[in-house]
Order: sequence, then structure tokens, then C-alpha cells
Amino acid sequence: MIIDAHGHYTTVPPGMRIYRALQISNMGRPSKGVVNISDDEIRSSLEKGQIRLLDERGVDVMLFSPMASAMGHHFGSPLVSRYWTEACNDLIARVARLWPDKISPVCQLPQSPDVNPKEWVDELERCVEELGFVGCNVNPDVAGGREPLTPSLGSDWWYPLWEKMVELDLPCTIHASASLNPAMHLTNSYYLAHHNSAAIELLKSSVFKDFPKLKIIIPHGGGAVPYQWNRNRGMHVKEGLEPFEEAARRVYWDMAIYDKESMELLIKRVGADNVLFATEMFGAVNAIDPKTGRNFEDLVPIFQEIDWLTKEERYKITEGNVRKLFPRIFGPTAG
Amino acid sequence: MIIDAHGHYTTVPPGMRIYRALQISNMGRPSKGVVNISDDEIRSSLEKGQIRLLDERGVDVMLFSPMASAMGHHFGSPLVSRYWTEACNDLIARVARLWPDKISPVCQLPQSPDVNPKEWVDELERCVEELGFVGCNVNPDVAGGREPLTPSLGSDWWYPLWEKMVELDLPCTIHASASLNPAMHLTNSYYLAHHNSAAIELLKSSVFKDFPKLKIIIPHGGGAVPYQWNRNRGMHVKEGLEPFEEAARRVYWDMAIYDKESMELLIKRVGADNVLFATEMFGAVNAIDPKTGRNFEDLVPIFQEIDWLTKEERYKITEGNVRKLFPRIFGPTAG
Repeated sequence: MIIDAHGHYTTVPPGMRIYRALQISNMGRPSKGVVNISDDEIRSSLEKGQIRLLDERGVDVMLFSPMASAMGHHFGSPLVSRYWTEACNDLIARVARLWPDKISPVCQLPQSPDVNPKEWVDELERCVEELGFVGCNVNPDVAGGREPLTPSLGSDWWYPLWEKMVELDLPCTIHASASLNPAMHLTNSYYLAHHNSAAIELLKSSVFKDFPKLKIIIPHGGGAVPYQWNRNRGMHVKEGLEPFEEAARRVYWDMAIYDKESMELLIKRVGADNVLFATEMFGAVNAIDPKTGRNFEDLVPIFQEIDWLTKEERYKITEGNVRKLFPRIFGPTAG
Repeated sequence: MIIDAHGHYTTVPPGMRIYRALQISNMGRPSKGVVNISDDEIRSSLEKGQIRLLDERGVDVMLFSPMASAMGHHFGSPLVSRYWTEACNDLIARVARLWPDKISPVCQLPQSPDVNPKEWVDELERCVEELGFVGCNVNPDVAGGREPLTPSLGSDWWYPLWEKMVELDLPCTIHASASLNPAMHLTNSYYLAHHNSAAIELLKSSVFKDFPKLKIIIPHGGGAVPYQWNRNRGMHVKEGLEPFEEAARRVYWDMAIYDKESMELLIKRVGADNVLFATEMFGAVNAIDPKTGRNFEDLVPIFQEIDWLTKEERYKITEGNVRKLFPRIFGPTAG
């Protein structure tokens, strides 16, 4: 079985965009409102897209979450962010009910600038306990590159979220949203910057001493982490921290990078026990590579070209590690 | 000859710190003041440090600039930044006069939030024409991670600087300074984020169409660029831009990364014509690697282990590309 640990509902029906657009009109007096989308609209938005492509590209199950850039936690008041988050999560839950064997739902959180993480956990509980979500995405830069700046992921400001995640035995993926910084390309600078930074902050902190059972995934191959490996090792030596190569195994890394050499570098650096197969379909590179004639996100063939992995390592990366991390993915009896 | 394209005067005598500290006391009414440092103090700050290590580590010449984090362009008014910049550049000029065969001076600029680049070029001219500087460092995030956010390096806001650099036939290295963002480690997140971003912004812009002779160096192996190669290629395909692999050869990349595999990846991706040997001594990783017993920044032996480079490629990376980029480095008759 091949599980894709990273996909977003980037092809939402127009009803979601209409809902979001109306939030601008009603910023001053936010109201919950109603999302007008039929099951048929959901089906047609995915049947010819991600669902067909999962089959065509040899992926069995996808961890599926709301659009990342559209989370837009910086926009509007905490109530605006909460209503939008609920609407996004409800929609993902409907997708998961339509394709229960293919889609495992991952939620976003009602983050908002200056709102404490303890305010987010009720929505996390609703998603997990009422709607069957198996994981969540956490935005490490809530205000989208502007002020107020978000505390380091190594800070205890985040502890109410970690506590709830451990209580629910639920993993998260760190995932930034839209950026307000005009000097940072969203997918190719801003995301990579904050996902690299998330790893650096977590691995030099006390978070995993305080929460040894916490399960955190760093996406996009860790930004620059494996490439800047000795820069990170050297920094840990200089600052008297645990060896970076050991710290790096406290988190998990998704393989939504698009080069065989980079996948190999990631696996060699952090080990097959800590890597998850991932494509982020449809993500930054939903386009045909003129050199291969294949979509950049069609990664199973590229992963299979890595010929030095054992059968067991291959199993871990495509299935075993997800089963270990996400106990809820195949229902309460899986494991 | 081996030229190190990236070094900072991180061991300045206390007189520089005193000067800077007094700027805080006098923020309301900035005054130029005087830097009290003798030549002997400069000698003793470097003779046992960088100058000795250049010899010990087999490096012949170092491009040497003021401390990067201490540029602190975000601090105080434009006049505070200007006085500090002049003091830093004057000190580097003195170092270069003491070791004319070993040190080639690179200046910082009097950048300050919301100050237009045309206000920086008089200091650039002073450094080049009066003090013999051969290059400059450009901070891409002037306010240090807070507002006001700096325009993209692809924007024409920067054009007055590019015009002057082309006129002087002078290259720059993009180099961020201290960060005010508590969630970003200075050397291992913030620098990498902004240097990666600088490459992305420049290579998708019209800058090199408008300034075909502009010479820009991206430090630290490009942040994540070679590792995220197909993510960048795919983004260029999606956005209808020139192939990324061609765009990447419009800039130069310094090799201040600390792994052999990463150096190899960089050289394979962008080509030996566009890579400069660099250590950033003393930089992020001035520490002993417990695995090798050698300082992380001792990079000549690691570079020499790369056995698939031709003699010509090796020459280009350690000397030839610097000679091409920095016509002033060995005086007006070099070339």
C-alpha cells in the first residue's frame, strides 16, 4: 500500500470561494453563514482530479486537508478565522465520507494572531471525536509574515496544543499559510522558510523532553535541513545541544520534494523510520516536467527508482510510518 | 590559489562594540563619534584568528566584510545606520591595508527601513573609489523580519543600486542581518530563508533583462535551492517563466555549506562556472565536528575530496570565478 501523507483540497467547488468572499463583506460583524455545496459538486471537483490521479499514479490513500494558503489565519478577527476553519473542516469531512477508503481527513485549526493555542483545541476535539479526523495542520506563523510575530515552536506558548494532541494521540503537520511578505514567494520561499525554521526551533527546544509522545511532521523534505546538515550539526555543537543527527529523529519528515537525489539525501540523513511518502498533490508543482513528460507530482516512479532501500525501509516510508503515527487512519482496530 | 569568497570580521576589537553601544545612548540625537581602535588591536584580533587560519587551512585570499548580524540596519534612524555603516566600512578598510595580499574588502551599505536604495550609493562610491573595496553586501530584509517589509529583490525599487553596481562593475553578495523574529534562528533559519528567497525573487524577475551585466552572489549554497530543485523548476514551468535551470546561471552561488554531498549537489545543479569557494569563517559553525575532529569551517579538504571535477572546474570554483566577478580584487591590472 502507498499512502500519500500530504494532499490539500485545492480544487474546492466555487461555493467555498463564495463563502470566503462574503467574509470580507461581513468582516465587521462576522456570521457563521452557510456553505452551499452539493455532494455532486464535491464529487465532480475530485473524481476527475485527485481521486482519478491517486489511481493513475499508484497511490492508495491520501491524507487530505484544507487548502493551505487559503487557511489565511491572519485574515479578520478570531471569529472570522473560526467560522472559516469550521467550514473548511466540515467540507473535508464530507470528502472523507464520500471516499472513505481513499481519503483520510486532516483538519486546520482556528488559529488567529494573538489567540492562545488553548482556544484552538475545542475545534480539534470536534474534528477528531465527532468527524473522524486523523491529524491536523499547524500554522507556525499565524499572522502570515507580519506582526504580531508568532512565538517559536520551541516555546511553551504552544504547550496547550501539544497537550491536547498527545491526549488524542494525534499527529500534526507543520504547514504555513498565505504570506503577506511581498519578498517571499509563497510555495518556493515562504513555506520552505517556515518549515525549515519549525524543525530548527523544535529540535533545539525542550518540547520532546516535555512531550515525549508528541508526533510532529515537517513537510517538504524539511525545507533546507538535509542540504544544510552540517550547518545544523555545527550549530548544535556550538550551542551545546544534543547532536543534531539524533534530534532530527524526534520528528518526522514528509517527502514532498520532487527530485530523486533530494529524496535520497533526506532518507540518508534522517533515516527511513522517520520519512513519509508525500506528493502534496495538487501543490506547488502541478505541471508537466518538459524533461520527462511526466507531472512533477507523480512521485511513485521516482521513489521506486531509489534502489538501495530494503523492502522493509520501503514499506516504512510508504505505509508503516503512517500507520505508526496515525493510529486513527484505519479505524480504532488498525495499528 | 584558493580564494574564500565569504568571511566576516566577527572578532572586532571591543572598541567597535563600545561605539555601537553608545549609539543606543544617543539614539535621539545621533552623532558620528569616533571609533577608538589602534592598529595593534586590529592585528591582535586577527593574527591569531582568521589570518593564521587562512594559512593553516590553505586559503590564500579572503573576501572580508563587516559582521553580518551586527549590520542591524533595522536599528535606529537612517542616520544611526549610516554612521555605523561608515564606521564598519572604515574598519574593514584598515584591515585590508594591514594585510593587502590576504584581505579583499567588501562593504556594507547604509540601508535603513523605508530609505530608498538611491540613498545608499554615495557610501558605495566612497568605499570603492576612496577605500578600494571590491564588492558589497546587500541586506534583502532591511527591517530584520518586521515591518516595514522590504520590496522583493525582483522589484524595480532596487534599481538605483543595481545601476550603480553595474556602473562600478562591482558584484554584491546578498546577506541578511539580525532578525527580530523570535521564531527564526539567525544563522540556521533566517539567513537561509532570505538567501533562498533572494534567489527565487531575482530569478523569476526581469532584473537580469534590465541589467545583463549585474553580478549577484547568493550565499550559503542558495539556502534550499539545489535541494528543492524540481520544486523550483516546476514553479517556473507553472508560471510560464524561463526554465529554472537556465535562470539559475544568471547568478553566482557561494559554497559556504559544510557537507561534501551538498557541495556536489550545488555544483551539479548550477554548474562550476557559477560557484565560488567560501567558508564564512567565522560563521554559523565555528566548532569542532566530533565526527572528524576538524573545524566545520575547514572546507578545503572537503572540497578536495570531490574527485569528479576537472582541473579547470576546480580552478574556476577556487579562483577563476572570483577573478571574473571581482575585477578590482587584484588591482586595476588584474583580470
